[in-house]
Amino acid sequence: MSTFSDSELTCNDFLGGRVRLWQPRAGYRAGVDPVLLAASVPASEGQSVLELGCGAGAAVLCLMARVAQLRATGIELQPAYAELARRNAAQNHVSLSVIEANLSALPEELRHAQFDHVIANPPYYRPGAHSPATDQGRRVALGEDTPLVEWIDVAARRLTPRGYLHMIQKADRLPDMLSACATRLGSVEILPLSPRVGRSAELMILRARKGGRAAFRLHAPLVMHEGDRHLCDGESYCADVSAILRDGAALTGFASDRR
Amino acid sequence: MSTFSDSELTCNDFLGGRVRLWQPRAGYRAGVDPVLLAASVPASEGQSVLELGCGAGAAVLCLMARVAQLRATGIELQPAYAELARRNAAQNHVSLSVIEANLSALPEELRHAQFDHVIANPPYYRPGAHSPATDQGRRVALGEDTPLVEWIDVAARRLTPRGYLHMIQKADRLPDMLSACATRLGSVEILPLSPRVGRSAELMILRARKGGRAAFRLHAPLVMHEGDRHLCDGESYCADVSAILRDGAALTGFASDRR
Repeated sequence: MSTFSDSELTCNDFLGGRVRLWQPRAGYRAGVDPVLLAASVPASEGQSVLELGCGAGAAVLCLMARVAQLRATGIELQPAYAELARRNAAQNHVSLSVIEANLSALPEELRHAQFDHVIANPPYYRPGAHSPATDQGRRVALGEDTPLVEWIDVAARRLTPRGYLHMIQKADRLPDMLSACATRLGSVEILPLSPRVGRSAELMILRARKGGRAAFRLHAPLVMHEGDRHLCDGESYCADVSAILRDGAALTGFASDRR
Repeated sequence: MSTFSDSELTCNDFLGGRVRLWQPRAGYRAGVDPVLLAASVPASEGQSVLELGCGAGAAVLCLMARVAQLRATGIELQPAYAELARRNAAQNHVSLSVIEANLSALPEELRHAQFDHVIANPPYYRPGAHSPATDQGRRVALGEDTPLVEWIDVAARRLTPRGYLHMIQKADRLPDMLSACATRLGSVEILPLSPRVGRSAELMILRARKGGRAAFRLHAPLVMHEGDRHLCDGESYCADVSAILRDGAALTGFASDRR
């Protein structure tokens, strides 16, 4: 499948309507994760940003809605999602260069480019660890055909000196993430994302810096939902999370107690 | 120095007086860390436990105060601390076998022994990363003459199948800890210890299991002190921490939301 027909798509609001995205009804659909990823990036006006595996563009377009004048590039393996990302950029009146490519075989133009920021929301499931998705596009988006270490390797190569990688991933992949960063990036920080107070982290955001030399830091978790673990009172987001998701605020968890 | 004179020692209460320890006035002195370490171990009556680098015995003697009939062994490099650990075991009416040895050259009897639990509170500072301690015993206790990976390697070799390692360490050593566990232990879990709500973790307790195959887990932090980061209201421990330190309760942070 190289393109979606309009009947296969829905249009959804992100950041309280600041960003509107066409997404496949049945394929990979962005949730809160790319929004949190975008909110974590300390980008400044005019900087360059590269999203690896941008899909329909949720993360990079949310980042562009918060930080003006970014020079943004997305890499996407699947042509139909790449086309959707271009359509979504146009619909949101921003300029996003979308390149169809496999991470392991980037085109020449990208192999000489460097970026102030690289962001990525790589697939969450390891091969063999889940039932096969019936939708082909969803299968590629979820299936980790490319190992996590390769995402981090490509990111490290494409960063400028002192440039930042931000990546959102399942918390149980922390050992793999740290191992992949070890020889490639420094100043690694982890922000755990916890569903409720007192619960283990299900996701995490990794921040790492090219050439960074600071000690590793493990931040206090960002708690997603109000209420403690004994309650099951639905999807009431905590105020700071709601400000990110609904109002387009930046995520402050990486800066909470800098010494 | 192969022994302490009585004038060089003080006697201190742990667990609200359930454990009383002689410690050197000027040397390495146990704080809350070995108490938290001991509280984290899910040992059962009659199991065997080995402490690597037991010092004056704080961690293993606190564990023995909570769990009856443990068959306990401590390894300590420095003869004066080993002697102190023996004296402290006798004072607390428990049987602790203390062996003077370097982790990298264990005596024959230990190289054939296996234990249900191994615990360790390895030195916190890397060589070159701190000013030299003036006290020789304190220097060895803080100086990491033995690399962290060797502590984990020795622990893994001395565990029975399905046996548990618990280790307390600075949070910024997490990448080194996970890397050392990767090929040696499984079912790794991290409990961050945070000074206050919303603050980064300063310490962590690592739990890992010999032959374990469960996914890595990052638990909600154990918060040490009441009050948020804007207050500086002294040393008021949170209720669950106080129950551990003063009443000898077990630490429940590893079991808080087991699925």
